Amino acid sequence: MPTIFELGEKQSLRIALAELKPAEAAIIGSGDDAALMFSDDGNYLVSTDTMIEGNDFKFEFSTAYDLGWKAIATNYADIAAMGGAPTAAVVAMCVPAETEIEWLKQFVSGLQQAADYFAPGSGIVGGDLATGEHAFISVTVFGNLGGNAAVVRSGAKLGDGVYVGGTLGHAACGLDLLNHPDQQFAKSYNQFVDIQLRPNPPIALGMQANLAGATAMMDISDGLSSDATRLAQASDLSIDIDSSQLTGYEAVLEQAAQSIATDARPWVLHGGEDHSLLATFSEGSEVPRGFKKIGVCRKADFPLSLDGVPIEPSGWDSVKVV
Amino acid sequence: MPTIFELGEKQSLRIALAELKPAEAAIIGSGDDAALMFSDDGNYLVSTDTMIEGNDFKFEFSTAYDLGWKAIATNYADIAAMGGAPTAAVVAMCVPAETEIEWLKQFVSGLQQAADYFAPGSGIVGGDLATGEHAFISVTVFGNLGGNAAVVRSGAKLGDGVYVGGTLGHAACGLDLLNHPDQQFAKSYNQFVDIQLRPNPPIALGMQANLAGATAMMDISDGLSSDATRLAQASDLSIDIDSSQLTGYEAVLEQAAQSIATDARPWVLHGGEDHSLLATFSEGSEVPRGFKKIGVCRKADFPLSLDGVPIEPSGWDSVKVV
Repeated sequence: MPTIFELGEKQSLRIALAELKPAEAAIIGSGDDAALMFSDDGNYLVSTDTMIEGNDFKFEFSTAYDLGWKAIATNYADIAAMGGAPTAAVVAMCVPAETEIEWLKQFVSGLQQAADYFAPGSGIVGGDLATGEHAFISVTVFGNLGGNAAVVRSGAKLGDGVYVGGTLGHAACGLDLLNHPDQQFAKSYNQFVDIQLRPNPPIALGMQANLAGATAMMDISDGLSSDATRLAQASDLSIDIDSSQLTGYEAVLEQAAQSIATDARPWVLHGGEDHSLLATFSEGSEVPRGFKKIGVCRKADFPLSLDGVPIEPSGWDSVKVV
Repeated sequence: MPTIFELGEKQSLRIALAELKPAEAAIIGSGDDAALMFSDDGNYLVSTDTMIEGNDFKFEFSTAYDLGWKAIATNYADIAAMGGAPTAAVVAMCVPAETEIEWLKQFVSGLQQAADYFAPGSGIVGGDLATGEHAFISVTVFGNLGGNAAVVRSGAKLGDGVYVGGTLGHAACGLDLLNHPDQQFAKSYNQFVDIQLRPNPPIALGMQANLAGATAMMDISDGLSSDATRLAQASDLSIDIDSSQLTGYEAVLEQAAQSIATDARPWVLHGGEDHSLLATFSEGSEVPRGFKKIGVCRKADFPLSLDGVPIEPSGWDSVKVV
């Protein structure tokens, strides 16, 4: 099996990209100096995110397919969080020189299948491949709003209900299982490991929330406490979470937590990487199915509380990784 | 002076981004899950490129300002090469944890000043900051065509003239001077070192070439021989370069070449990173000032020749870096 170093960039890309499908919103796709994209209403969303080996993933845990899938899922979640529909992505990456071409093919397969799954018709419209000691995958993603306004973090109003669309704590649980010395537990609760490796954010819910009049929205990438704090601060108000509304999220994780002698609550409250949607809706809104109410926006001197008691955010800081 | 590790991601970005100006084409800029961009004609260009420490830059040669400038210059060149005008960029980067906040401020200053210089009104609309052992800077850039069609690599026709807009070989000369044991020569010919560190591609020429009817265009990032070969192959024809038209490019570099006992020709023919524009125009076109004719498109069994003699491309392969 040849390595990408043996094949060189051009040849490696020719082989690896063979199975990519054109993105519907691309007038000119990958292969020229730039891609040319089309947007119905002249507006387009843009977001970028990077996964770095060691900090964000490990080759011992993630297959090439997993990484391709995760790169798309996590970035598409940012488009969904603005109330848009993902249309395309560009992928810049660095992998070790001895990487086999088969690895790259599997990675591209993960990209394409995630694009098909989360936003049919979307696709990869460009990229950049290099080799180096430390691997990274940097994705920039594009999305359309279909003529609607974007849903920003700063739009929540006093009295709005606070809702979550998607799971909480699954990816954090999966990571703890992967890091546990006894790998038996990771096998027993592989559904959570799967979410850590191949997240399944509710991408289509983003546009639905927009159409239903969500007042603010963001994706929960660093953890509910961190991201709810950010939304509250951006909207200049306070979010109070009702702990009784978290018990359902905790119940699902309870057995897995007990198996490794830990507690499910921190996963639900502080665990990131499920990339679920955190949204606010004013009272009387027809909130789309798939969202569950967990709290309310109110006035207070602190951004976040649980049953009225202020709590500190405790999540991920990409700079503080050691 | 605090490091970005001490400050964390949020605080570091708040400080470093203070001097960024909003991009005119951004409806929503940096700070939410995604930026929202506007395009007059509903079309937008997208390109991505990454600079990796060791492969593409060294901290001993490049200041933070240099790297910010270069990141914008090289990426904007891809938008120019499609005949468009750059509007904005997103920047994902990884730097060592001990990086001082002052370094990041200088880097952002380089980004902003290059954006102002190459495409006034354009700016940075998002990013991602992480820390790790090996630094990289991954930029995705956007551009508008103002209602015009894009100029692709594959549009050259038999008989078209082949033109270069901008310098050839300056960045390659600068790199050889930087790598020379005697740093006196780098000081003597610092104008070439400057182009290696802070490229000055003719960004505005891209749109001018488009309006003047360029049949094909690309930026010369890997070297004239490599990139002319790519354009010829994409257009399914052969490019013959007239060596007498290269003597002007060589003459400028002659003294610097002699000082380190080398030859200027390979810099001009194979040296990349000036990010000048390679374009083709049909006979009778009003070719914009700033382009110089260096050859012609013709039919042959090989993609590239010099005075009729086939030559092999010899340039940069980002995968083959060791």
